[in-house]
Amino acid sequence: MGILRLSHLELRVADLELATAYYTEVVGLVEVERDDERVYLACWDEHDHHSLALHGHPSPGLDHVSFKVECDQDLDELETAAIHRGCHVRRLAAGEEVGQGPAIRVRSPSGHEVELVHVRTKTGGLLPRVNPAPEPPGLLGIHPPRLDHVQLTAEDVGGATAFFTAALGFRLTERLVGSGGSLLGSWLERSHTPNDVAILRGPNGGLHHVGFWVDDWDQVRRAADVLADNGVDIEAGPTRQGVTRSLGVHFFDPFGNRNEVFTGGYRPDPDDEPTTWTEDEIGRAFFHYQGRLDARFLAASD
Amino acid sequence: MGILRLSHLELRVADLELATAYYTEVVGLVEVERDDERVYLACWDEHDHHSLALHGHPSPGLDHVSFKVECDQDLDELETAAIHRGCHVRRLAAGEEVGQGPAIRVRSPSGHEVELVHVRTKTGGLLPRVNPAPEPPGLLGIHPPRLDHVQLTAEDVGGATAFFTAALGFRLTERLVGSGGSLLGSWLERSHTPNDVAILRGPNGGLHHVGFWVDDWDQVRRAADVLADNGVDIEAGPTRQGVTRSLGVHFFDPFGNRNEVFTGGYRPDPDDEPTTWTEDEIGRAFFHYQGRLDARFLAASD
Amino acid sequence: MGILRLSHLELRVADLELATAYYTEVVGLVEVERDDERVYLACWDEHDHHSLALHGHPSPGLDHVSFKVECDQDLDELETAAIHRGCHVRRLAAGEEVGQGPAIRVRSPSGHEVELVHVRTKTGGLLPRVNPAPEPPGLLGIHPPRLDHVQLTAEDVGGATAFFTAALGFRLTERLVGSGGSLLGSWLERSHTPNDVAILRGPNGGLHHVGFWVDDWDQVRRAADVLADNGVDIEAGPTRQGVTRSLGVHFFDPFGNRNEVFTGGYRPDPDDEPTTWTEDEIGRAFFHYQGRLDARFLAASD
Amino acid sequence: MGILRLSHLELRVADLELATAYYTEVVGLVEVERDDERVYLACWDEHDHHSLALHGHPSPGLDHVSFKVECDQDLDELETAAIHRGCHVRRLAAGEEVGQGPAIRVRSPSGHEVELVHVRTKTGGLLPRVNPAPEPPGLLGIHPPRLDHVQLTAEDVGGATAFFTAALGFRLTERLVGSGGSLLGSWLERSHTPNDVAILRGPNGGLHHVGFWVDDWDQVRRAADVLADNGVDIEAGPTRQGVTRSLGVHFFDPFGNRNEVFTGGYRPDPDDEPTTWTEDEIGRAFFHYQGRLDARFLAASD
Repeated sequence: MGILRLSHLELRVADLELATAYYTEVVGLVEVERDDERVYLACWDEHDHHSLALHGHPSPGLDHVSFKVECDQDLDELETAAIHRGCHVRRLAAGEEVGQGPAIRVRSPSGHEVELVHVRTKTGGLLPRVNPAPEPPGLLGIHPPRLDHVQLTAEDVGGATAFFTAALGFRLTERLVGSGGSLLGSWLERSHTPNDVAILRGPNGGLHHVGFWVDDWDQVRRAADVLADNGVDIEAGPTRQGVTRSLGVHFFDPFGNRNEVFTGGYRPDPDDEPTTWTEDEIGRAFFHYQGRLDARFLAASD
Repeated sequence: MGILRLSHLELRVADLELATAYYTEVVGLVEVERDDERVYLACWDEHDHHSLALHGHPSPGLDHVSFKVECDQDLDELETAAIHRGCHVRRLAAGEEVGQGPAIRVRSPSGHEVELVHVRTKTGGLLPRVNPAPEPPGLLGIHPPRLDHVQLTAEDVGGATAFFTAALGFRLTERLVGSGGSLLGSWLERSHTPNDVAILRGPNGGLHHVGFWVDDWDQVRRAADVLADNGVDIEAGPTRQGVTRSLGVHFFDPFGNRNEVFTGGYRPDPDDEPTTWTEDEIGRAFFHYQGRLDARFLAASD
Repeated sequence: MGILRLSHLELRVADLELATAYYTEVVGLVEVERDDERVYLACWDEHDHHSLALHGHPSPGLDHVSFKVECDQDLDELETAAIHRGCHVRRLAAGEEVGQGPAIRVRSPSGHEVELVHVRTKTGGLLPRVNPAPEPPGLLGIHPPRLDHVQLTAEDVGGATAFFTAALGFRLTERLVGSGGSLLGSWLERSHTPNDVAILRGPNGGLHHVGFWVDDWDQVRRAADVLADNGVDIEAGPTRQGVTRSLGVHFFDPFGNRNEVFTGGYRPDPDDEPTTWTEDEIGRAFFHYQGRLDARFLAASD
Repeated sequence: MGILRLSHLELRVADLELATAYYTEVVGLVEVERDDERVYLACWDEHDHHSLALHGHPSPGLDHVSFKVECDQDLDELETAAIHRGCHVRRLAAGEEVGQGPAIRVRSPSGHEVELVHVRTKTGGLLPRVNPAPEPPGLLGIHPPRLDHVQLTAEDVGGATAFFTAALGFRLTERLVGSGGSLLGSWLERSHTPNDVAILRGPNGGLHHVGFWVDDWDQVRRAADVLADNGVDIEAGPTRQGVTRSLGVHFFDPFGNRNEVFTGGYRPDPDDEPTTWTEDEIGRAFFHYQGRLDARFLAASD
């Protein structure tokens, strides 16, 4: 019946060892597997093979974003829908990507590599399935239980949004509308959260940030303490965002890929209208407390 | 596509005025409408007509639980499925129940009145749809943003669970298994949460508790402070539950209907296995900290 | 035995009605008394007449800071000590200032009006003395239980600090030392907290901020939500400060007097050494997470 | 000038290795030193040699409680005051007890061994004195920054309280008064907190609990998670106490010595009246939420 949720992201990082140290010891993900070119990481409460792949590459950014679909047939249907919209699509055979079965890769109108996959190796989370404690022992750093969302940049936010809604079946939860009526940002969901993917005006193919879930505002504070202890560049927060009603902190990995630790928000009902933010309130839309943005935040990760 | 989520509950309360005062001023719901026999209440972040109806009646308990379905056709399909399982079903015409269109009422094998409805009057939440603040002003008491779940009691938990999964399409997230292998409790979802409905061994047709969502552990503390200030009978908590990994507090309305304020938990993936709790860990399953239950908690509301 | 704690501050505000509305409805203090020129406010858990006096005056800033001493004799001893250091001192008769007995006013070397007083009218807090609830009902806005500290500015921080330690008996808990060895900031206590008064390099007679206590990090978040709801200019935070190890948010009253909501910190032992911050870590000293300061924060309130 | 604060407690534990494992790995104190009979532990933000000594001994309980005084002369003055009240006093030479100078031991009217000491070895906390982070790395378990208070039991609470106030200079912050007018409990301070020591009706010489400070309600939750993970017997909480307005959780070490993790409360002013609790509200005085006590809680540790 379509996309279930984010499957994984692949990020480009200039130094694979440093990136692995950062994402496992500071962010607190768990290394699942590695090969010559990539390291595969998962959060402790995720059950599929990995949610983040790090790819050694001189320029930072998002290699691809992958979504998991409910059944094999979804791959065919979504492939057809993408081709119908004029997107280039290619098939990946089972095993071509570590930890998963056959997949399709769609080049989105905004220049992002969007993957769809159904079969993924079940590695299981770190808790037992019988009488589990609330958290496994021995976690490091921030240790979010889950990857939450990805925010992309696109020159034409309206077009990029239409691809995600019309071709991939995403539902719009919030939108940021410019004074001239154009779409400056959109937040989209498939898994009953305020956003699985969001799009902000910026360069095509760009990554704004990768968002990891933590359980509450105190965990956001704790995340900020961990980041400061490790000398990480914290851009903004802890703060509240008007959009998604969430609480979080934004920071950068050692290569300039923006990360977020995120909590709160609301449970969006599929039968509700999206929320609209107007450009004159853009400060509050992103930083509810200070109510102002700097130019850096509006830029894609670098 | 089936059930979206809880629509509303109808509770029997001996004194409609006292009940309304309790649910609006202490729990902090908002009165939407009232007629001679009932008062209709909603949480501030809900958009349909009401999520709790109070019905003046000498004996407390659950009159019916209602679920919202995605489309009209779901009513026909679920009616057929229920009849197929030998359940008595009756149709309610549009307007027969305040704030909604046509509905069906199924008498479940466990003796609960289970309603399904598609069309409900959209009253909207208390926040504007453009540039909303994170919370509306002037709320009273605990003011949960949403009804979260209902826990029922049934003599045959296995049979009751099968009705919810096989006839209504619920997915099992957790289960409590007796030492002899019988099912003592089950937690079931349709809306991507640890439980929309749960079933605990107890009298047929019984209500264990009604669970309201709050945003975090500090709001659980605040809820407990509000309850203590109002002299409410707090049964247990603030505590963590092993089942659902949640944090909450259990208490009683003035008539003996058990309420819960609930937060935390996890985001259950539909492609994961349910978690199992064994009877020897029943204490921890419900009260992770003390690890012991008293007889009162195992009883239905009264 | 000397100074017990802060007694009260008097702030200049251009519009007494607007200031009263802000400090009672947004900050959430309680109006105790008013006369033609001043409004007297207290926090809900304070027992003396007032902790904040608002004085209608075109230019913002601190009129005077007042400390409560343990006994009458302290007034004489501290007067002698101040005169000894060359400070101008004058006596205020009982009743000359609302809600208190005789006082002395010392013009400090940094140009601040520092008052010492022993007898103050006991108005009591808002909780009963028998079987109190943890918080009184009906509070508005942020409603801090207490005034926590005041931060002053001085051109010669070393000299200003010496006055507070040598003449008034304050103890240094933390200090910020410039690369050339000069003192850029000092934090001083009499009441077993990280700071009752602090001094930052800036114009003589200046006010940096007034700090109100709240109970925890979640109350800091709640304070920021209240401020944003009321359109208050939030300068920085919620954040952690390296100095005092505290958590807080900085903002401005409608006239440019900087306020802070503050929590955390530690319990300083009088037999411990002060903590030292070096100028190269000044960013982290004030804003532990971002680790950088802007010029505005280093300025006195205006 | 008298007593500054708690110096340390010595507890009897049947198994010194098990006790050390519990207090370092679960409670999270740091081992400072050990000899044949005792292990000496400190919290990470304490600067003197130790705050908890564990003494191998078959029956659990409190060996002695030790307070630090401000100067040598205090020892003489407090010795005189104790002898004046008919207490047996003995002198300990420097080095007779590990990590400290000369001390006096007073047998209190309630049968407790109360030590007074001035000189203690400064071991320093775990944070540097220059540009410290808010918390040191590598802490285990709950890791409270400080010992907060000790609660004793006495048959004659009034007499025991008079000893602490009249002979040792403690100030009463709260009291629990029986329906017949007798004192059932008292809370006493020297260091500007709601209680450094408290006394509850019970056997002479008994220990009710040892209270460790944590920073907020979320740390209480975290402490309870750590305790549950380690299978510790959690008696009550997380909850709020009416007395001291605090939040905490009560539990037992492996030998039956009751521990508490404690936060919140208020800053007591020395010029305020004590708060009174009446016996009919004893439930709320200890457990504000449930409002009821069980017999176990009223018993001393065992």
